[in-house]
Amino acid sequence: MDSGDPRLDRIVRFVLETDRLKEVYRQTYITGGIRRENSAEHSWHLALMAVLLKDYADGPVDVEKTVRMLLVHDIVEVDAGDTFAYDEAGAAGKEEREAAAAERLFGLLPPELADEFHLLWKEFEERRTPEAKFAAALDRLHPVLLNRATEGAAWRRNGVRKEQVLKRIGAIRDGSSALWEYARRIVDDAAERGMLRE
Amino acid sequence: MDSGDPRLDRIVRFVLETDRLKEVYRQTYITGGIRRENSAEHSWHLALMAVLLKDYADGPVDVEKTVRMLLVHDIVEVDAGDTFAYDEAGAAGKEEREAAAAERLFGLLPPELADEFHLLWKEFEERRTPEAKFAAALDRLHPVLLNRATEGAAWRRNGVRKEQVLKRIGAIRDGSSALWEYARRIVDDAAERGMLRE
Repeated sequence: MDSGDPRLDRIVRFVLETDRLKEVYRQTYITGGIRRENSAEHSWHLALMAVLLKDYADGPVDVEKTVRMLLVHDIVEVDAGDTFAYDEAGAAGKEEREAAAAERLFGLLPPELADEFHLLWKEFEERRTPEAKFAAALDRLHPVLLNRATEGAAWRRNGVRKEQVLKRIGAIRDGSSALWEYARRIVDDAAERGMLRE
Repeated sequence: MDSGDPRLDRIVRFVLETDRLKEVYRQTYITGGIRRENSAEHSWHLALMAVLLKDYADGPVDVEKTVRMLLVHDIVEVDAGDTFAYDEAGAAGKEEREAAAAERLFGLLPPELADEFHLLWKEFEERRTPEAKFAAALDRLHPVLLNRATEGAAWRRNGVRKEQVLKRIGAIRDGSSALWEYARRIVDDAAERGMLRE
């Protein structure tokens, strides 16, 4: 139904398209362990973590911008799907799939919002600014916390090796040395307790 | 596992407790229509809508504060559960249940964050500031959009009447006259098409 305001219609259309992010499932299990996490609730949790953990960023960050980036960072998965961090075959073509998804999805928005969302998503992907580095650190820390809370459910199910996790979460170091130390210790401990293959 | 930093431990404990918001199901169906929406993904969607629809607020609002409020507003449901907007029996004692939940959950945090979250939650509940009014408007508009997209799935399943919806979403008017007009027209149309009881 038209609202009588084409700009509002475009935004609502985008809101409804992004609703499908609630059906994009990641490999990580939620703490109840009953099902995998979807990318919409994951994005909420990361945005919350940005507010909570801002003091752990290395150097000053604009928290609000980090939050905005995290709200937007996974939207491309509505078209492109979630690629498991340790799926090398799935990683092929990921960049192209996501770029096409960004074009289509952000292109539904009125021009100024399309530009804003596109820039936020690119900034996150490029991991160059302090905010993007901090956002990436949280995005890598989060599955470590959920894996620890579920006895390594996703790691075990996929036979993930410790070195793979350490390589993947190395990006935490670029955003927060404190969170990097913390994550590294959790991974060491998880490997000792058999949640990760050596 | 301790991080060696008691402040960080408290924050991580809170992050893991709030993970349970992903298992608090609302009455509204997601657009795929396959299942009900949970309060975590709902919070993400509202925060995103705040960024997208900021120009539709009546008068100036601090968008970042609105976003923060929306990220936090449903956390009490981890303990208190979601109360369906049209469940009069369930509404009894809701306020006390949620106040106790806020005490326990925000109390897990380091003091300054506990205070910040408690204030954000109270501000949302009281609906007095421009940000709280706008946040409430989005919170009421969202299920209208999802119901329309699912042929009134939650309304039909619960035998909801048009006058109940109009009363419930009246709060949109306090935050955005444009979104109120829009929502009211959707409800009129939904009732005409039999998605709502007259």
